[in-house]
Amino acid sequence: MDFSSFLTSLVTSFVIFVVLMLVFIWLYRKQGNVVVYYPNRILKGMDPWQGYPSPRGPFAWIREVMSSTETDIINFSGLDTAVYFVFLSTVLGILVLSGIVLLPVLLPVAATDVNIKSAFKNTTSKGTFNDFDKLSAGNVTAQSPRLWAFLLAVYWVSFVTYYLLWKAYNHVSALRAEALMSSEVKPQQFAVLVRDIPAVPKGQTIKKQVDLYFESIYHDEFYRSMVVTNNKEVNKIYEELEGYKKKLARAEAIYAESKKGGNGEGTKPTTKTGFLGLIGNKVDSIDYFNKKINELVPKLEAEQKVTLREKQQRAALVFFSSRVTAACAAQSLHAQMVDKWMVTDAPEPRELLWSNLKIKFFERQLRQYLIYILVALTILFYMIPIGFISALTTLSNLKKLLPFIKPVVDIVALKTVLEAYLPQIALLVFLAMLPKLLLFLSKVEGIPSESHAVRAASGKYFYFTVLNVFIGVTLSGTLFSTFKTIQNNPKSIITVLSNSLPGNATFFVTFVALKFFVGYGLELSRLVPLIIYHLKRKYLCKTEAERKEAWAPGDLGYGTRIPGDMLVVTIVFCYSCIAPLIIPFGVLYFALGWIILRNQALNVYVPKYESYGRIWPHIFLRVVAALILYQVTMFGYIGSKKFFYAPFIIPLIIISLIFAFICDKKFYRSFCNPALEVASHDLKETPNMEHIFRSYIPKSLSFEKHDEDQFDDALSHVSRSQSSV
Amino acid sequence: MDFSSFLTSLVTSFVIFVVLMLVFIWLYRKQGNVVVYYPNRILKGMDPWQGYPSPRGPFAWIREVMSSTETDIINFSGLDTAVYFVFLSTVLGILVLSGIVLLPVLLPVAATDVNIKSAFKNTTSKGTFNDFDKLSAGNVTAQSPRLWAFLLAVYWVSFVTYYLLWKAYNHVSALRAEALMSSEVKPQQFAVLVRDIPAVPKGQTIKKQVDLYFESIYHDEFYRSMVVTNNKEVNKIYEELEGYKKKLARAEAIYAESKKGGNGEGTKPTTKTGFLGLIGNKVDSIDYFNKKINELVPKLEAEQKVTLREKQQRAALVFFSSRVTAACAAQSLHAQMVDKWMVTDAPEPRELLWSNLKIKFFERQLRQYLIYILVALTILFYMIPIGFISALTTLSNLKKLLPFIKPVVDIVALKTVLEAYLPQIALLVFLAMLPKLLLFLSKVEGIPSESHAVRAASGKYFYFTVLNVFIGVTLSGTLFSTFKTIQNNPKSIITVLSNSLPGNATFFVTFVALKFFVGYGLELSRLVPLIIYHLKRKYLCKTEAERKEAWAPGDLGYGTRIPGDMLVVTIVFCYSCIAPLIIPFGVLYFALGWIILRNQALNVYVPKYESYGRIWPHIFLRVVAALILYQVTMFGYIGSKKFFYAPFIIPLIIISLIFAFICDKKFYRSFCNPALEVASHDLKETPNMEHIFRSYIPKSLSFEKHDEDQFDDALSHVSRSQSSV
Repeated sequence: MDFSSFLTSLVTSFVIFVVLMLVFIWLYRKQGNVVVYYPNRILKGMDPWQGYPSPRGPFAWIREVMSSTETDIINFSGLDTAVYFVFLSTVLGILVLSGIVLLPVLLPVAATDVNIKSAFKNTTSKGTFNDFDKLSAGNVTAQSPRLWAFLLAVYWVSFVTYYLLWKAYNHVSALRAEALMSSEVKPQQFAVLVRDIPAVPKGQTIKKQVDLYFESIYHDEFYRSMVVTNNKEVNKIYEELEGYKKKLARAEAIYAESKKGGNGEGTKPTTKTGFLGLIGNKVDSIDYFNKKINELVPKLEAEQKVTLREKQQRAALVFFSSRVTAACAAQSLHAQMVDKWMVTDAPEPRELLWSNLKIKFFERQLRQYLIYILVALTILFYMIPIGFISALTTLSNLKKLLPFIKPVVDIVALKTVLEAYLPQIALLVFLAMLPKLLLFLSKVEGIPSESHAVRAASGKYFYFTVLNVFIGVTLSGTLFSTFKTIQNNPKSIITVLSNSLPGNATFFVTFVALKFFVGYGLELSRLVPLIIYHLKRKYLCKTEAERKEAWAPGDLGYGTRIPGDMLVVTIVFCYSCIAPLIIPFGVLYFALGWIILRNQALNVYVPKYESYGRIWPHIFLRVVAALILYQVTMFGYIGSKKFFYAPFIIPLIIISLIFAFICDKKFYRSFCNPALEVASHDLKETPNMEHIFRSYIPKSLSFEKHDEDQFDDALSHVSRSQSSV
Repeated sequence: MDFSSFLTSLVTSFVIFVVLMLVFIWLYRKQGNVVVYYPNRILKGMDPWQGYPSPRGPFAWIREVMSSTETDIINFSGLDTAVYFVFLSTVLGILVLSGIVLLPVLLPVAATDVNIKSAFKNTTSKGTFNDFDKLSAGNVTAQSPRLWAFLLAVYWVSFVTYYLLWKAYNHVSALRAEALMSSEVKPQQFAVLVRDIPAVPKGQTIKKQVDLYFESIYHDEFYRSMVVTNNKEVNKIYEELEGYKKKLARAEAIYAESKKGGNGEGTKPTTKTGFLGLIGNKVDSIDYFNKKINELVPKLEAEQKVTLREKQQRAALVFFSSRVTAACAAQSLHAQMVDKWMVTDAPEPRELLWSNLKIKFFERQLRQYLIYILVALTILFYMIPIGFISALTTLSNLKKLLPFIKPVVDIVALKTVLEAYLPQIALLVFLAMLPKLLLFLSKVEGIPSESHAVRAASGKYFYFTVLNVFIGVTLSGTLFSTFKTIQNNPKSIITVLSNSLPGNATFFVTFVALKFFVGYGLELSRLVPLIIYHLKRKYLCKTEAERKEAWAPGDLGYGTRIPGDMLVVTIVFCYSCIAPLIIPFGVLYFALGWIILRNQALNVYVPKYESYGRIWPHIFLRVVAALILYQVTMFGYIGSKKFFYAPFIIPLIIISLIFAFICDKKFYRSFCNPALEVASHDLKETPNMEHIFRSYIPKSLSFEKHDEDQFDDALSHVSRSQSSV
């Protein structure tokens, strides 16, 4: 990439950003778009602009964002989001502090040297030779004492990182403690998840067994238990029923509308009874759906009874009347054998992965390791499935597999285009599917909660991104010769990596710029959801519920967002000394991200679950990992400049490891389990145990007409007398 | 070692064993020796031969041992000893089952082959070429299909080991659970150890702080706390006082005895007031000691007050009124930061390492890693300090350092002997000091209890023994050439090891035989303690307390015993296929050990502490480690025979790792913390909390005259009202 195309790329990205920004400023103040730009506030039952000054100027949103506090974020979007902003501002702080020192020091040091010709020869740079390179470490002659400046710069960046990360970890830990000691009653703080219940003794039910077991240990503090059931069948019926209810509402809405029109009678909508409503007899919709609903309600009730009675599984939720007891129980070994009566924290009701709960201890272990191996293989050889897909998707193969597309693809112009782009499209499809695939794989591990699965998937995605995008791009082109070098001398991987780095500086600057200008532009303007919403509203939605569904905003999506940010952190770290000009771009990325996502967190996205900042230790470790990668790379790079004092970076790597170790030891356990001093804080009111218990009953099992007695099978009521407490 | 010297060595060992056995049979039935051969029973307040049939024949002890049950062992010597016997019998079982198959199969397979000449050339055998070798794997020609038998033998030994270890782990786990759920009140089950208490808020004492903290979490279940104090000074005074009391008793006994003699008056014993009673004024002993005691008692009382008030440290013992609460507390995170309010199981009062309790969290981590590094260096380079000591102890150096020995060592004959043996003596001294050194190092780590320190030292000693004795001896001689080979090709270490093995078979057979014939002979006959006791009784002991001290038996000493046994396990495993004739010796070692040590456990040794079998997981892992070493060695050995199917052993190594992983996951946690289902068993009586609390007060602080009030400073009494519960 030469300098002009580098500039072109930057300018293009910037123009797109400005356009998207103008679109946003134009649209966000219109009343009709309020459900697209302020859904979070609407769902919280607030007036969208409540608390904001009016009239709303074009940049009112920036003022609102800047004046929002951490407490606002926690109130509007939960602790997980607040922790995400701690991450953004910490990285921003690191980059700003690094930039303040590195830019004024390293740029003159590099620019006044004269190595540019030889540097050009030495690196594997792909024709990069421009003013940009003149400002990079590549311009410093080998063995020059100027390299001291670069070496010390690594120290500066590292210590800034240690300091800010330490502060951030303390802060997040305090936030988590505060949230957990909140005087609000949260059901998950009174419950534990029990898995691996051993075989039932003869003449006992699982419910009885669980109740006896926990009563004998906890006596009065044990409230009640809920045995996990296999809800597959009942969920299916429930969803079918809900589907018919929606269709009925829709048919009624259409009928009511038609009444308002031309004649007073209106036309009754009709539907076809066959496959997808496309074939079969034409019948009156309202009658048909009513009939279906009337059929399904007793079926659901029957299935509910069967499920509760006969589909109990070897897992349960156990409820305690005090937070401390629940916190204690979740951390203690209950059975002499670890693979029996495994007790852990209960996740929130809404994020429980009900079908994973029954999986046995060693099966979980086995699944976990198999998935790890699978993911490791995917990361290492991800080109292979892509190559396979590409091969499958060549035109001649496609024609064989799907003969009916033959007439279409035989058009010459189309053929050329398709042949050129099919492999790339396959790659893009694979990359787009990857987060979903990783989330699916993480769920297969047997993880009990959605948020945990997202964390696990996020970790996998991070490794994938850093290994394939960062290291892959850096070494690409020289890949095969690299492999040969590494095979002959494993130590040389560092040298190869650091030799390839400088040549890719401009590529990564453009990458980062593209990512934030276009990415954040689209994020803020919400063009795609806006268009989809307006189309749906106009042509599809008939009922209020359907309209609400059309603008449902979803959540912030840490699973993929954090690995993306981590990739930028890794890139900016690694280039911070080699090409310090990347730092301002990094600062811009995190500053824009902070402003725009804060707006989105306050006004748009609705969190799906709350894990009280459990993602933080993983973010922390990955920032430290990026730092260590940076230190190792710089060791290699300065070493490749034949600088005698390069080993002075090694103590820094050791310090990083010790720093990570200390933080992990000091903070990590309180992110796994709530500390008792936190859980022992007083509550605002005596908890309504019945309410807590009921919040865990899945919708498909808590159909309106149910009365208490039917729950007795899977849901015990040992201490019913206490339920009035 | 040729065949005749091999036989000589065996026969010598056997003769020594027979002699020692006869000595034992002659002596153990004499009434006067009863305190040497039955101290455990006497200390338990039993008649030494109570429950045993009389008259006692020469082999009565064997009948008694054979008829003793595991319950007897637990009652007489504690669970730790019972677990040690589970280890002995498990290994015995493995060896017997292996021998039953390996001896009849492998010996004929090896003996009927004809490779003996070439094997002699190929191995690094030191002139070993005899009938013994004919029965070993060395006699099988390379690439011979007979090697299948050896390969399958490895499978047989491995699966026997898995099976018996699995059974043993289950058994030990059940024993531990049974002991912990016992209905007896054990103080340590009601207490937890609290370390890393944070800085005291202004205007509060540590005691107040601890009480408030635990009361707010546990409410009624918190009984009382005891703040750890720095007892160094008070211990010193207490010991001085006890010393004078003993001397007084001795002087009174001498006086009483002299009265009985010649004249009715008797002569009052005198003592000198100076250094060690050797110089200074001569005074009347009884008066002098009485005066000293009268001086020290108020001094002790004053120091006790100062200690309790002013020498409080940031650690405490906290007592709960229920076992479940204590078990829960020990497993739960209390503070948001892990390095504050660290709560763990309380050890038994008698084994608490009082002075280690105050060490802070990260200091403990630091100490631990430093000690690990130090021990690793000691193991790897243990020749260096020995060489250093040897150099110091050459005669010319000694003469310089200690000029006064010059006239002695200048005698020619003595000089020759000394010069020949000094380095070996230095080595022996170092080896003899090693267990003590390792125990000392383990205590420096900051470990809170004696039993834990012994376990840590035992682990270090195991690595030392296996690495230096087993691998060291095997490779010795070829050591330096070996290092060169390994440097050039790291993979070759397995090959080198397996090449060197066969040549050392006879050496290790003699080693094992010497160890059990002489070692167990001395163990059973207790010649050394017997002689010391009789000498002391006759010439030194005057009072009953002194006599009791003279026959105090000590404990079984797992710390050094288990690594010794593990060395034999490793040796016998590794040679079991290469020279199957070693198996009977291994069987004899463990069978004799079982019988003789069972006698000692029942009658002689008194356990110092009870850790409820916590050593077992370590024993287990080390047996598996020995098994894996065996499998790796056999892979190398069969590979060095150019046998095409040698890689068939690799799956076995993987199975061993999975087996260790599964056992560790399934069982280990219940060895770290008591399971709640175990702790929740009912007690025989409501525990006397005051009694439990008092059992933790160190002797030096619980001097008779003390009344309650003085403890108030370090020993809280929040729930005094409950103490009558």
